[in-house]
Amino acid sequence: MAAPGENLRINGDRLWDSLMEMAKIGPGIAGGNNRQTLTDADAEGRALFQSWCGEAGCSMGLDMLGNMFATREGTDPEALPVYVGSHLDTQPTGGKYDGVLGVLGGLEILRTLNDLGIRTRHPIVVTNWTNEEGTRFAPAMLASGVFAGVHDQAWAEARTDAAGKTFGGELDRIGWRGDEPVGARKMHAFFELHIEQGPILETEGKQIGVVTHGQGLSWTQVTIIGRDAHTGSTPMPMRRNAGLGLARVLEAVEEIALAHGPHAVGAAGHIDVHPNSRNVIPGKVVFTVDFRSPELSVIEAMDAQLKARAQEICDRMGLEVTFERVGGFDPVTFDPGCVSAVRLAAERLGYPHMDIISGAGHDACWINQVAPTAMIMCPCVDGLSHNEAEEISKDWAAAGTDVLLHAVVETAGVVE
Amino acid sequence: MAAPGENLRINGDRLWDSLMEMAKIGPGIAGGNNRQTLTDADAEGRALFQSWCGEAGCSMGLDMLGNMFATREGTDPEALPVYVGSHLDTQPTGGKYDGVLGVLGGLEILRTLNDLGIRTRHPIVVTNWTNEEGTRFAPAMLASGVFAGVHDQAWAEARTDAAGKTFGGELDRIGWRGDEPVGARKMHAFFELHIEQGPILETEGKQIGVVTHGQGLSWTQVTIIGRDAHTGSTPMPMRRNAGLGLARVLEAVEEIALAHGPHAVGAAGHIDVHPNSRNVIPGKVVFTVDFRSPELSVIEAMDAQLKARAQEICDRMGLEVTFERVGGFDPVTFDPGCVSAVRLAAERLGYPHMDIISGAGHDACWINQVAPTAMIMCPCVDGLSHNEAEEISKDWAAAGTDVLLHAVVETAGVVE
Repeated sequence: MAAPGENLRINGDRLWDSLMEMAKIGPGIAGGNNRQTLTDADAEGRALFQSWCGEAGCSMGLDMLGNMFATREGTDPEALPVYVGSHLDTQPTGGKYDGVLGVLGGLEILRTLNDLGIRTRHPIVVTNWTNEEGTRFAPAMLASGVFAGVHDQAWAEARTDAAGKTFGGELDRIGWRGDEPVGARKMHAFFELHIEQGPILETEGKQIGVVTHGQGLSWTQVTIIGRDAHTGSTPMPMRRNAGLGLARVLEAVEEIALAHGPHAVGAAGHIDVHPNSRNVIPGKVVFTVDFRSPELSVIEAMDAQLKARAQEICDRMGLEVTFERVGGFDPVTFDPGCVSAVRLAAERLGYPHMDIISGAGHDACWINQVAPTAMIMCPCVDGLSHNEAEEISKDWAAAGTDVLLHAVVETAGVVE
Repeated sequence: MAAPGENLRINGDRLWDSLMEMAKIGPGIAGGNNRQTLTDADAEGRALFQSWCGEAGCSMGLDMLGNMFATREGTDPEALPVYVGSHLDTQPTGGKYDGVLGVLGGLEILRTLNDLGIRTRHPIVVTNWTNEEGTRFAPAMLASGVFAGVHDQAWAEARTDAAGKTFGGELDRIGWRGDEPVGARKMHAFFELHIEQGPILETEGKQIGVVTHGQGLSWTQVTIIGRDAHTGSTPMPMRRNAGLGLARVLEAVEEIALAHGPHAVGAAGHIDVHPNSRNVIPGKVVFTVDFRSPELSVIEAMDAQLKARAQEICDRMGLEVTFERVGGFDPVTFDPGCVSAVRLAAERLGYPHMDIISGAGHDACWINQVAPTAMIMCPCVDGLSHNEAEEISKDWAAAGTDVLLHAVVETAGVVE
């Protein structure tokens, strides 16, 4: 199939205007967005997206979990569609671009193709996946996970939020449940454009991240049991201070991650200290160690070292330690053909680019299990995301969407 | 004044029966007590204590903060009373002995003197101080603090519990406010018998702790500011991990305390991590460092070292750190004469004893500011206290009360 010409570009101003228009729905309290999944604001955002897709001449499909599929027809009735997209839902104190750029960037490439009268052999479908964030209904990437066969649909619908409302009930309430069986669609390929949510591209001065892998992760919940004791009346040698055990294991986590650099990372974000009283030596500490790497063997090695080091530390201090695996997913290797299409698009367009590993989970990580998939990343200011202060530049958004356009058009095939 | 004969002993069975009888009021859920200050259970406990004092021939004084004073008259109308006592209120999940032993041990010495027809020159007064625990109405040792002039009475009465009820209102509600001005009484001496609430006496095989000092303490709240960031998408060298800063400062706290051993101690019991999410590198950690020593200069040195070390650690890691003093009291040196009376009593009675420093605060620490004061400690099993499983043996209770009897009688003067 012919590659698109290097002068083929999306309309960056129109894309930006759409991003700003969508951001008016479910405004946050600090300039960002609170448009959590299956809320009234989510319904309003979906309706706006649907109306834009209609104006672009697309038909809209809707499956039983509310996943939206806006189709621009191709010329070959036998050809499977090329899918693009991401998610319109946000964190409670989220930004304007996380997910939204991937959906509206997808819409923008359809608008551009319409402007230029370009026809493709394969249809192109822009998708909005329901509940990527997972903040209201855990886990994250829920509906794309069902689509890919990772989760059971009934289980997903029974997930509850903090108020006890179910995913299925809220989906019905906002009126966005469709008839399509989840996962029935077959894809020729899937491309997801997303902000990096990390500082690498900006630091390296690159506009495009060619995502070759998704990091795998392992979450180990560590419980250290010492002994509650009065901070005043217990001599130092008689203490069994679980808080000091925590400190030493955190240092070990840092050392283990650094020893597996540069791609491995490790930290504990969740730490609970009991009884958490100023005058009681902690008798119990529970925390979760998060290790990530693009290589499964490295994750397994880090987990094993954590257990050995923590056991040794706690044995020496008269503390008990137990470990529980509370989450994880295997590393993702994206499709070499799709990744190559992204890299070639960036080169053709002359955008500074680099290969990058996604540190966060994305819908694309699940869809990769059922279709050839790749991701494109663009920088975000200071790597900040999941924060109302999340920011990107109009140029970054346009460059990422240009690359998405070229990768998709090349994969979908221009009809001369 | 003549010392009492070495065969003078209290009635250990009667003391134990009274302890068990009092423990029936405000039972806990695990064998201990929940008789928090100014509750209905507290009122019931006070009434039982008052009835026992009446049976022992004592008159009962009551001050405007509910402090109770049961007086056994002396022979010299000019002689100031020797006071003994502690507190009947408990922690929400408290033990049967913390405080109670000091009050009912005081009652037991009056009963013993009655049994034997022993008269003393100075009156002997058994005191129940209101709200020693401070769990319901902070701070601890509230009414003895007002008595000693440390706190203002109106401020004390305005203290509120978690439900917004005031100390003064609850005191009126349970009907235990008296007419006596708080702190008007003058004391010849004050002795407080208390369980150790630490493991030293049991470990050393001593039945009696001769309390020479109360540790001073300093509470420094440390706030470390890093940067919230995704645990996956932030490379290790770009992190500003406040949780790792916490770990390193906790190690420094341990080193500083050990360097000032054997009497200095240090730990952090209170640790809050923000945002405390499994996939967010902590951007902020707030924790309180508790340093204690019987020497003020040592406490000051430890505080200074903490600030220097924490600053150095955080500077190196790109973290900000601030310090706020949130609590403290100066070390207490008990009255040499009273301490000597306790030590001589233990020797006379043949109980294994050792000098000890009180690591916790007690009513005696405040009363020491207005009267010659000393404390007697007895062991508790495994050093456990502020816990329903708090336990002591009948022999330990009796030995401690024997020493209290001898020290008090020698100080009050037996009339031959």
